[in-house]
Amino acid sequence: VTSEDSGTIVVDWGSSSFRAYRFDEAGEIAARRQAEAGILTVADGLFEDVLEREIGDWIVPGIDVVFSGMITSRNGWVETPYAGTPARLEALPAAAVIRESRRGARLRFLPGVSTLAPRPDVMRGEEIQIFGSVGAEETATLVLPGTHSKWATVTAGAITGFRTFLTGEVFALLKAHSIVGRLMPKDAAAFDEAAFRAGVRQAFDPGSAGLLNDVFTARSGALLGAFPVGEIADRLSGMLIGHEIRSGLALPGTVDGPLRIVGEDGLVERYMMALAEIGRAAGKGPPHAAVAGFRRLALLEAGRT
Amino acid sequence: VTSEDSGTIVVDWGSSSFRAYRFDEAGEIAARRQAEAGILTVADGLFEDVLEREIGDWIVPGIDVVFSGMITSRNGWVETPYAGTPARLEALPAAAVIRESRRGARLRFLPGVSTLAPRPDVMRGEEIQIFGSVGAEETATLVLPGTHSKWATVTAGAITGFRTFLTGEVFALLKAHSIVGRLMPKDAAAFDEAAFRAGVRQAFDPGSAGLLNDVFTARSGALLGAFPVGEIADRLSGMLIGHEIRSGLALPGTVDGPLRIVGEDGLVERYMMALAEIGRAAGKGPPHAAVAGFRRLALLEAGRT
Repeated sequence: VTSEDSGTIVVDWGSSSFRAYRFDEAGEIAARRQAEAGILTVADGLFEDVLEREIGDWIVPGIDVVFSGMITSRNGWVETPYAGTPARLEALPAAAVIRESRRGARLRFLPGVSTLAPRPDVMRGEEIQIFGSVGAEETATLVLPGTHSKWATVTAGAITGFRTFLTGEVFALLKAHSIVGRLMPKDAAAFDEAAFRAGVRQAFDPGSAGLLNDVFTARSGALLGAFPVGEIADRLSGMLIGHEIRSGLALPGTVDGPLRIVGEDGLVERYMMALAEIGRAAGKGPPHAAVAGFRRLALLEAGRT
Repeated sequence: VTSEDSGTIVVDWGSSSFRAYRFDEAGEIAARRQAEAGILTVADGLFEDVLEREIGDWIVPGIDVVFSGMITSRNGWVETPYAGTPARLEALPAAAVIRESRRGARLRFLPGVSTLAPRPDVMRGEEIQIFGSVGAEETATLVLPGTHSKWATVTAGAITGFRTFLTGEVFALLKAHSIVGRLMPKDAAAFDEAAFRAGVRQAFDPGSAGLLNDVFTARSGALLGAFPVGEIADRLSGMLIGHEIRSGLALPGTVDGPLRIVGEDGLVERYMMALAEIGRAAGKGPPHAAVAGFRRLALLEAGRT
């Protein structure tokens, strides 16, 4: 085989985006492509047509194409099982579901990761970001903010437990559909840091009557003139992130140790700000955690073949 | 004036329903009407046309028509201010906004009730149910379950404080629009008491990582086979009501005293069941609390004129 044939292609295919990387045998990125071709945009299950359109010129018989993210879910191309905790990076390729493409490439759909205790939980895609944020034998607590935020414990390089918080999705629902969102001005305003911090403080206030009451006060406070309607959105964001952090910090194993926040810059900044507001230090994860995770995976693959 | 002219008409006009009562001077209901003509169904602010259509034959010059509920809000006919806490029944007619109808009736739009401490909060309509559920000088803690559940403290007949929980609205949003709702079977099933009670227990479990995590487990638990998808809706309902009750019981003044649950039967039963699940006794309010409240108001009016 030529060196062009023998690398690995990784496709990070989520609900709203398609990202592909071609790694060479040294684990370096030889090429990358990105498209607004998330699985929700793919009609009639024609995933292979989209794959050919986006990276058909990379595909040669015998090449490995590794898939991660929601493409491996019930709504994706091939549904894969979950690797249970504790889950090491090595568990992902070992549990992959293999298919052959029309043109003879080996398609390898990675599993997600699940845990049963202390609560049932699942992830698909975030595990790659986690493995890209820690060393091979490192122990750490990671926070991955987002639509479905994850708080994960990594012990000696393995994901040993995690919890998902519906923070981002609840914020989006309240903004788009609730009586609280109805008072928000329609024009997007610049981020109001003071309002956000006030929301965080409210979530941590001993007088808080919980999230279901706090979110209502984002409306009633504005109605009664306690703050302007322009502050509702960022107060609400601060409350929800504050409640997530309050719950996350109370988990066994997160109370005392250092936290590492992993994700895109803006959201990581918000979480760092919220943690600072309550006097808690935290570090940032690597800027491109998913790419770092895929690089570790490609190196592992290269060492195996 | 004839006795027909001198009674009081009360219109309980909410977002989704229109209920009208004609009280005689003894405070008894002489007639009642109901229509699916909530304020959200009224186009172009033509509220008076709807009023004439529904109860035009009751309206004579000089008669009092009292309005309560969301008809007095920003989205209603006439927006009224809020009566502050402590609020006695007498404060409502005293702060009413008066208009004259086309045909010379005196339209009296009641205020809502607001409080500023410990959190800003508002109600419009529930105050009538509260006054209909307590004696004139009674002290009690009331729970009014619903889209926007209220926990209210009444001291010597006056509403002295309250908190709103967005419980019902959050449930509806999660069911209709979230990733958790997506797994729920489309066909409505019978109420699953065991699933509901399991949700309540989860909210009160010391291992709960808060509402944002609990609601996600209603999805992940079903994905991992911990329970069937048919249980998701009632588990979620139990979790949300459980979190509301957990927060409500921690409020100053609710920890030890008796609770009275006020509302429509099905919802009251759910709250009684949730409270029983955690070993807490509670009583039921009167079956038609709003009517009882309007009756008290009508008697007050009759005594005044």
